Amino acid sequence: MARGTITLTTDFGPDSPYVAQMKGAMLRIAPDVMLVDVTHSIPAQHVGAGAIVLDDVCRHFAAGTVHVAVVDPGVGTSRSLVAARMGGQTYLAPDNGLLGLVASRVAPTHIVRLTNARYWAAEVSATFHGRDILGPVAAHCVRGVPLVDLGERQDILTPAPLALPCREPGCLRGICWLVDHFGNLISNIDRSWLEVPGQRVREIRVGHTIVPGLVRTYGESASGSLVALIGSHGRLEVAVVRGNAAQRLGTGEGTEIRVFLADGELQEIGKRE
Amino acid sequence: MARGTITLTTDFGPDSPYVAQMKGAMLRIAPDVMLVDVTHSIPAQHVGAGAIVLDDVCRHFAAGTVHVAVVDPGVGTSRSLVAARMGGQTYLAPDNGLLGLVASRVAPTHIVRLTNARYWAAEVSATFHGRDILGPVAAHCVRGVPLVDLGERQDILTPAPLALPCREPGCLRGICWLVDHFGNLISNIDRSWLEVPGQRVREIRVGHTIVPGLVRTYGESASGSLVALIGSHGRLEVAVVRGNAAQRLGTGEGTEIRVFLADGELQEIGKRE
Amino acid sequence: MARGTITLTTDFGPDSPYVAQMKGAMLRIAPDVMLVDVTHSIPAQHVGAGAIVLDDVCRHFAAGTVHVAVVDPGVGTSRSLVAARMGGQTYLAPDNGLLGLVASRVAPTHIVRLTNARYWAAEVSATFHGRDILGPVAAHCVRGVPLVDLGERQDILTPAPLALPCREPGCLRGICWLVDHFGNLISNIDRSWLEVPGQRVREIRVGHTIVPGLVRTYGESASGSLVALIGSHGRLEVAVVRGNAAQRLGTGEGTEIRVFLADGELQEIGKRE
Repeated sequence: MARGTITLTTDFGPDSPYVAQMKGAMLRIAPDVMLVDVTHSIPAQHVGAGAIVLDDVCRHFAAGTVHVAVVDPGVGTSRSLVAARMGGQTYLAPDNGLLGLVASRVAPTHIVRLTNARYWAAEVSATFHGRDILGPVAAHCVRGVPLVDLGERQDILTPAPLALPCREPGCLRGICWLVDHFGNLISNIDRSWLEVPGQRVREIRVGHTIVPGLVRTYGESASGSLVALIGSHGRLEVAVVRGNAAQRLGTGEGTEIRVFLADGELQEIGKRE
Repeated sequence: MARGTITLTTDFGPDSPYVAQMKGAMLRIAPDVMLVDVTHSIPAQHVGAGAIVLDDVCRHFAAGTVHVAVVDPGVGTSRSLVAARMGGQTYLAPDNGLLGLVASRVAPTHIVRLTNARYWAAEVSATFHGRDILGPVAAHCVRGVPLVDLGERQDILTPAPLALPCREPGCLRGICWLVDHFGNLISNIDRSWLEVPGQRVREIRVGHTIVPGLVRTYGESASGSLVALIGSHGRLEVAVVRGNAAQRLGTGEGTEIRVFLADGELQEIGKRE
Repeated sequence: MARGTITLTTDFGPDSPYVAQMKGAMLRIAPDVMLVDVTHSIPAQHVGAGAIVLDDVCRHFAAGTVHVAVVDPGVGTSRSLVAARMGGQTYLAPDNGLLGLVASRVAPTHIVRLTNARYWAAEVSATFHGRDILGPVAAHCVRGVPLVDLGERQDILTPAPLALPCREPGCLRGICWLVDHFGNLISNIDRSWLEVPGQRVREIRVGHTIVPGLVRTYGESASGSLVALIGSHGRLEVAVVRGNAAQRLGTGEGTEIRVFLADGELQEIGKRE
């Protein structure tokens, strides 16, 4: 039998000892588990950023993987902790929108509020439910405890606190959700919005800066070029070849990114007049 | 049989290749071990910070865990390397105070100086005993080599170079030992000093700033409130709800934190006069 | 049978979700593999720095280890991806010089271009070959797929884009290749250039600053001393005891480091006149 994998996505900060405390709590219960750090650098208490990263990463893991996410500004309040089965994987998090983006893509088949203290740490602190509840529950999940044993059934998950793109005549209007380590602007526009038969992208605008239509890879353009492409996460991104787009454009998270379409002569004529 | 866990706490810096060198050295000997990075971001050569983190983290791991800590300003001098059994776990470190805080809480049952070169790397560099001695010895420990084989018995460990709190009439006088990633001020005052029957906390002072008495969780107070609570590590901490206390107060490590008690009418009267 | 180890060296940035995507892709194929992060903090697209770190780290891992390195400014162009067997270990990387330093020390016994798509992800993105090709291929390697199955044989690897030291009369002329986390200047001068019978080091010069001849360890000199020694990576390094040499000297990567030799009286006399 495979030993099972638990991934961790938090805002604890890189190398925070809190991460190791959680791992210790999980290894007590599931000493053979594979632990994968997704990131601990979600900006502090930024639920939206956590939701994006989780959604980007989860699809690359096998069925059966258990994902734990902790970005929890409401710790100690009445916000609930949940477990959800989505796409054959199990997710554990505060029900504050962290799981909202995954849930908008893959319908949950089962959701429970974590109310069965039998699977928690013997002593639960008031401030660190990641270590004392989510971690132990994840370890029990990976060892085969079914969701139904973890608590009371719940119907829906809180949506992610993220602006969605919208489609206007001749234009897709989105924003920059995240700036990655290379300075690429990652938008909220999924490839499915762009790869529409018969639709052609004329140009992309980041604020007032015009970026020529999509390239396929960074390598197609000269060093220093500003380009737009569908990145490895499956979303429209704006990048500078071998450079830093966020710095070049002086922009970042929240900047408007618009995709202008050229899907008919009429539109073009209308524009010229 | 469980494969065993080794944790690593160092000041090598996040993503330092030195960490991977140590892991390579350990995996040669114990290829099935579970390796857990506690942190590699201990401030360079700051033995006290290493001692605090180690003491916070170790209690969350199972019996049998092997903890390796390397903060070693004295590498290449005559300072000794030690192995100590404390609370059913094994600790490996330079004997410079790194293990002092754990040892002040859980009495060591066995201490040895690492003098038996049989369990070291074939070639020992002058500058990196973490990789060439502590790592290989840890891997042998996890595979079952008893402490008694590792070297000569030693009686005591060097104490941690950390100021301890003191109790004065009507007041507990401590300091901020560490600022965590969220900007919370973590004090040296353990919960056992605060949870005394009949004792009530009136207020906490950080320098000249007054913080109202203890709350149970962050969530009890409004965003932006300055609060004091017993944190997840079991120590008094001062925090700003959804904010950064160190920035707000312009303070950090070493700042005095005093807890004023209101445990009798007499004291109150004495104070008023 | 051992489960096998894969190491990862990239410029994705610490805690980048791209790392977790690669790990997910590998764990699908080899769920029991041991994954070791060497570093994800190679300066963006700095192939030379990646080559140095890989060469420093690989020698501490056991035979059979699979090393994956991704510093890939040419992703999406016609640059090839390769697998190479060197010193009993397997290396996977873009053929852009990343493997050049290892190859200059340990002759490759087998090199192939990765052209057999059978071992890639089902869907290969244009921008992230680390996740879609190198990761899956590494997982297949660790499970025993032979190199010969991965693609077409190739004769040589691209050399590393790194300045090599040179030997002049009475002097070894090198540069600082890297500054480590402690601020130590790591040179390109290997210990084999220094440990020559009958050769004695008189002084080292970093720019115009004179450093006295080699010490054996940091501990031999007073705090704050500027020293030169053969570091744990086997190269000449310049350090400040309990301090930061790069800050003290106001220098960094690329600075000239010269070793002046005193291997005969004649030279000394020549110098004095």
